[in-house]
Order: sequence, then structure tokens, then C-alpha cells
Amino acid sequence: MQQYQEMTKEELLQEKALLETEYDKIKALNLKLDMSRGKPSAEQLDLSMGILDAIDSNTALVSENGMDLRNYGVLDGIPEAKRLLAEMLGCHEDSVIVYGNSSLNVMYDQISRAMVLGICGNTPWCKLDKVKFLCPVPGYDRHFAITETFGIEMINIPLYEDGPDMDMVEQYVNNDPAVKGIWCVPKYANPTGTSYSDETVLRFARLKPAAPDFRIFWDNAYCVHHLYEDRQDVILNILAECEEAGNPDIVFEFCSTSKVTFPGAGIAALAASQNNIADIKKQLTIQTIGYDKTNQRRHAIYFKNFDGIKQHMMKQADLIRPKFEMLDELMTAEIKSRGIGNWVNPIGGYFICFESLEGCAKDIITKCKEAGVTMTGAGAPFPYGKDPKDNVIRIAPTYPSVEELRKAAEVFVVCVRLASVNKLLENM
Amino acid sequence: MQQYQEMTKEELLQEKALLETEYDKIKALNLKLDMSRGKPSAEQLDLSMGILDAIDSNTALVSENGMDLRNYGVLDGIPEAKRLLAEMLGCHEDSVIVYGNSSLNVMYDQISRAMVLGICGNTPWCKLDKVKFLCPVPGYDRHFAITETFGIEMINIPLYEDGPDMDMVEQYVNNDPAVKGIWCVPKYANPTGTSYSDETVLRFARLKPAAPDFRIFWDNAYCVHHLYEDRQDVILNILAECEEAGNPDIVFEFCSTSKVTFPGAGIAALAASQNNIADIKKQLTIQTIGYDKTNQRRHAIYFKNFDGIKQHMMKQADLIRPKFEMLDELMTAEIKSRGIGNWVNPIGGYFICFESLEGCAKDIITKCKEAGVTMTGAGAPFPYGKDPKDNVIRIAPTYPSVEELRKAAEVFVVCVRLASVNKLLENM
Repeated sequence: MQQYQEMTKEELLQEKALLETEYDKIKALNLKLDMSRGKPSAEQLDLSMGILDAIDSNTALVSENGMDLRNYGVLDGIPEAKRLLAEMLGCHEDSVIVYGNSSLNVMYDQISRAMVLGICGNTPWCKLDKVKFLCPVPGYDRHFAITETFGIEMINIPLYEDGPDMDMVEQYVNNDPAVKGIWCVPKYANPTGTSYSDETVLRFARLKPAAPDFRIFWDNAYCVHHLYEDRQDVILNILAECEEAGNPDIVFEFCSTSKVTFPGAGIAALAASQNNIADIKKQLTIQTIGYDKTNQRRHAIYFKNFDGIKQHMMKQADLIRPKFEMLDELMTAEIKSRGIGNWVNPIGGYFICFESLEGCAKDIITKCKEAGVTMTGAGAPFPYGKDPKDNVIRIAPTYPSVEELRKAAEVFVVCVRLASVNKLLENM
Repeated sequence: MQQYQEMTKEELLQEKALLETEYDKIKALNLKLDMSRGKPSAEQLDLSMGILDAIDSNTALVSENGMDLRNYGVLDGIPEAKRLLAEMLGCHEDSVIVYGNSSLNVMYDQISRAMVLGICGNTPWCKLDKVKFLCPVPGYDRHFAITETFGIEMINIPLYEDGPDMDMVEQYVNNDPAVKGIWCVPKYANPTGTSYSDETVLRFARLKPAAPDFRIFWDNAYCVHHLYEDRQDVILNILAECEEAGNPDIVFEFCSTSKVTFPGAGIAALAASQNNIADIKKQLTIQTIGYDKTNQRRHAIYFKNFDGIKQHMMKQADLIRPKFEMLDELMTAEIKSRGIGNWVNPIGGYFICFESLEGCAKDIITKCKEAGVTMTGAGAPFPYGKDPKDNVIRIAPTYPSVEELRKAAEVFVVCVRLASVNKLLENM
């Protein structure tokens, strides 16, 4: 296939005319398709219906430690739920607090309490002149929305295939006491789909933060979201490595079953050192009497143990994998072949991160929208919604059916080609 | 029965000797009883087991508006849950946000966000030199713990049988812009069991706060917790009255089903004006993607409507009422008759608020503890745990069986008599 960048002006104009005809035809179809939502499909959700039978009116709602789960009590999670999520995170169950239905809410709360109450006896961040967070980009828009809401200054850190630019991270964290945290999605990242290398994790564990209340916000949202049985990313255990490095307190790890069972009806967890857990529990006991133990028990009964989760996730993988593979194949043939786009083909997670020619992302997304295909908004994966090169588009393949996704991808391909041609012509 | 206060020193000494013998006998029994916990009994919880059958794997988990409840989406509650809790609060469903499992957490969040983000565009409270809250006393210790945690200065307001001292409330609220809120449990209050009169509610609605972001925190925790079918407190609707008075924005109302179905596995709600709801939703959308819609649906299916809740609560009343009546009878015969204690006998709620002779509460609670009966800690119903007259004891009759409760009450009676005799002798 001829590379667009090698085309003459005349060839590009010819291509443009051809693509515009094609684009007009597509627009006439009045499509209504969506590649923007990081949501499981109905078929994935069907796989979890059995959890609704785990508990009924004949169930003795008693925890394995004998507690009546129908009444008040238990701040940090019932033992069987702590064990299940500790296994999932590869840590000791004493390092875990099991929460309600949303790990995003747990992260928000961590920052909210750091703002007003302070972490481990340190000055509340709202009393400081300036608080900064490092944001590997592209990243997760809802992380950035939290720090933006609290007026925390966000600093872009390039995210490479093996993790964030650790030279920059070390430079900031080890020298600037205003840097209080960093957002990380270490495995099958949103949106790049890449995972941190061992070297990256080790460099995180060995940070020497200038701020005593600096914390790594390690959002292990996709820790069990593999697409293949035989090809899986494995990352080092951050809690263990931080402890090993004499830095036990510098990390908060988060996970949930939102994309394992039902989003909104799952359970979430935080894992951290004993110091951090004690500090959090002291604050948490003011915030709530406890989380939904019934739903914790429901998850523990349904999955039994971590093997149960792994088997369940492989069934989900069977539904998701064809979507990723189809997209990769189609975009390789139509886009990569023309030199007008790139991505890492992930082996897990929920997203593909498409990089167009510089200055094309907004235009592609607008063109898609006009042709009836909704993409994640331009700039969403960046702090303040600002994509400095205007070339990143998050693609979410899970929710639509393969057929819908193929139709949407065919529109996307035309829009990428047309926007690229226009950009190349503009630059001539 | 002879009043203790009319006894001669000799009579008191005789009574003391008699009571000390009795007390020693009780201590020898090595009892382990508890009148401290505002928890439903296992029998009450049994009444709700049917809710666990409301949803199973054969249920189409679709909301009445057609949404798949198993997936992401819906910040403010599914329509059928909003309607159910709006009926319970007597307000329009558009005035309601349905949350997760804990109204205490909702209240905490309201104050936490007021601290860092501010209410309706006003200055965040953490940026102010001084923030004050009015605290009708005796009140709910977990309310006071929240305001104490955030460093908010708490001001005691006497709570009478018809509500807080409204002269004082008006004086503070209408003149001091540092007064940002007041904690209210308007119906079957924790711990007094009393309800606000119409006059009190109307005076609340007609406040003219000096602070634009002053809010009444109207914790309607016991709105459906009647003990009798034919004798029920009815309070005016605060939202409607505030709107009528041209003050629609000055109140946040809270409720939950924690003591209707299962504590920890219920659903909670906040009701407020459209301005407040819009402001809250704007902040909330950063905090979470949404609450547990499955559990919201479970409640809506199980109860169908407010009548379902009312019928259910009457079954609970049949279990609780005998405990309140037994206590009232026993304490009337043994304590009131001797002029050494007083209380309002409530017709709803979860507590009896016992007032001993001044300076006796700590001593009674200690004596109970030594005899194996746990009472709510002395001072708990007061800000900073300080009971100025040391005469308030919260009694929680619901959790133990009638038999256990009777045993515990018999111990309590002896401790009250002994502490009173000692106090009277001391004052001679």
C-alpha cells in the first residue's frame, strides 16, 4: 500500500476526492454507532448473572467468622472478601480494605481526605499554597477530573510502552515537595493497553519523595483483564517492592470487580501498608459505619477464590478478543499500511490508543461524529482535556457487537484517511 | 414509693447498704448484656429476608425506563427507587438523589465537599477562619464526630420536647455568618425519641441565615419508625415549608432504609431544592460513576411502593414495641417512682433518653459495666463527648431479646438507685 506521506500533491488530491465521495455515502446511511464507551457488552454481563443466585432468602447470611452480615458492623470488609481481593492483588489480606461499589470513589475519597484531613498526620493539602500531581499521558480522564476538581496542578509525564518517563518522575518526586502524587494504571493501561516493565515498577518502589505524604495512586483496574490465556502481561507487585525498598508507605493500590461482575454492583478495594491502613481506617470510621457486606459475601460465594475470577475472566476474554483482533486487522490493513496511524495492540484491558498524524485527532473525531460514529472526546486522555499534539484517540471496542464495531471501524478508517490527506495537503 | 430526695441521711444510708448487697449479688452473676447498640434484632432482620429473592439470575435487570441496570450509568438513582424514597420523604422524585448504602456517608460527603469545594459557588469552608455548627443536645454522636473531624466548632443548643431552642437557633443563624449548619433529627430523635412541633419546623423554614451557604442537615433517619399503628408522630414537610417560606435552598434532608431492610445493605437518599440537587450532581459526577442500581431495583421490587414500607415497618414495630413498653414500665416502677430519673416515653425510633440526677450518668454507666451491662458511653450524645450536667444516658432497647433486656434493665435500675443514693449523700 502506498504511504500517504510519500504521495505527491496530485496523488493526495485524487485520494481526497475519492475519500470525500466515500464519506458522503457513509453520511447518507444515517448510522448511529459508538466506540467511545469503556463498558462491558450485554453478553459479558450475561456471564455474571449467576452471582444473583449466590444469596437468597434461604442463605444463612453469616460471614465465615460468624458475624451476622445483615446487621451493622465491619468497617474494612468481611474476611472472605478481603481474602478474595487480596489474592487478586497478590498481597496479604491484612493490607486490604474492601469498600462499596466504586474504586473511583475510593480514589476520590483518598484525595478528598488528603485535602482536608491530611495523610498520616501531614498538613492537609488545602492548607498548602500549591499541590501537584504527575499525570502519565495519555491516561484516564476521570483520574484527571478528580485532581482538577480539587485545584491540584497536573503535570504531564510521557507514557512509553514500558511505563511513564521515570527520569522525569524521579526528577519531580525526589525534588519537589509540592508533588504529592502520581496517577498510574500499571497494567493494560487506560487508554494505551500497555503495562509497566519490571524496571519501571522498581524505579517507582525506589523513589525518594521530597514530600513525606507523596503517594503513588496505583489503579490496578485491569489486573485480571487478559485477552489471552497464553499471553498475559505480568507486572511486579508494587506493595512488595515498595516494602523491599524500605518505602512501604508510598503507595495506595486500587482495584474493583466493576468490570468483572456488574459495573455499579461490584466491590472495590484499596491495598496499602499497615501505617496507611491504620490511618485510613481512623478517618473512614467517621465517614461511614461500613460497606455492603451482603454484596461482599455474594462475590465471595460466587467466585470462591481467585481461580474462580480467572476462569470467569477467560470467558469474558472470549467475547472481547475477537473485537480487538478485528479492529487491529482492519486498521493494520487500512491505516498502518498507509503510514497514517499507530497503536500498540494490547493483550488485555478495555482500550486501543490510536495515534494519528499530529493535528488530526479532533478532525477525525468530528468527522466520525458527523457520520454517526461517536468516539471518546478529543483531548479526554489528557489533563485539562488538552492533547498537546492533537493526535490521540481512545477506542473502546468492548460494548458494541463485532458487526457494529466493524461498521464503526470502517467509518473511522475513512475519517482517518480523509483527515490525514487534508493535513498533509495543508502542510504542503 | 418514697422519693429519694425526701429521705433523711439515715434512710439513705440504709438504702445504700441494701443496694450494695444487691449490687454485689448481681456482679457475682457474671452477666454479659448490652443496651448500647442502636441495631435491629435478628428477628427484625428476618422480616427482610424476602428482599434477597427480589432479584435472581432469571430477573430481567432492566429499570422501568428501559436501562440495563447491570452496566454503568445513572448518577442520581433509578426512577423507581427515586419514587419510592421520595414517597417516604413526602417530596417530588426530582428532589431526590438515591445513593449507596449509608446516609451517614452522604452527610459526611456533603460536609466534606463543603469544606473543599464549597456549596453552590460559595467559599470552601476550609478557606474560612472559623466554621460553626449548631448541635441540638442530646443528639447523635456520629453527627458530632463528622463536624469535630473537620475542625468545625460545635455549639450546644438545648433540645426540648418540641425541638431545639429556636430562640437560640435564630439568634445564631440569623446573625453569625460563621454558622454554616445545624444537625437535626426531627422525628423520633436519636436519642430523645421526641419529634419537632409544627411551630419548630416553621421557624426552621423561616430562618434568615447570615451565611448564604447555611444549611439545615435534616436527618430524617426515623421517618417510618413508628412503634404504634394508631399513635404516630407527624412532622411538617421541611422541603415544602422552606419553599413556601421563600427559602428553598436552606435544607438538605437525608434518609435511608438501613433500619428498614438490612443495615449496610440498604439504600440512602438526599432530598433538596433543584439548585442544591444541580450543585451536588455537578460535584458528585467527579466522585463516582454511580451507585448500586441493582440494590436500588431490589428495594423497589420488594416494597413496590410506600405502602409496602409502611406495612413492613409495622411488623418491625410488633417486635420492638414490647421492649420499649417493658422498659418504661419497669423504670417507671423502680426509678421514676423514687424521683431519681426521667425520660420521654417515645412512640417511635430506636432509643430512650434517660436523665438521671445531675452528676450521676458516668457513675451509673461505670457501675453497669462492672456488673456486666454495657451502656452507651457517658457523654456520647454531646459534642466533644462532654455532657455538661453528666445526667444523660442513651438506652438502646432493640437489639437484645425482651428477656435479656429485662435482666439488663434490672441491673440498670440497681445502678441508678445506688448512684443516686451516693450522690444525694455526697451533697448532704
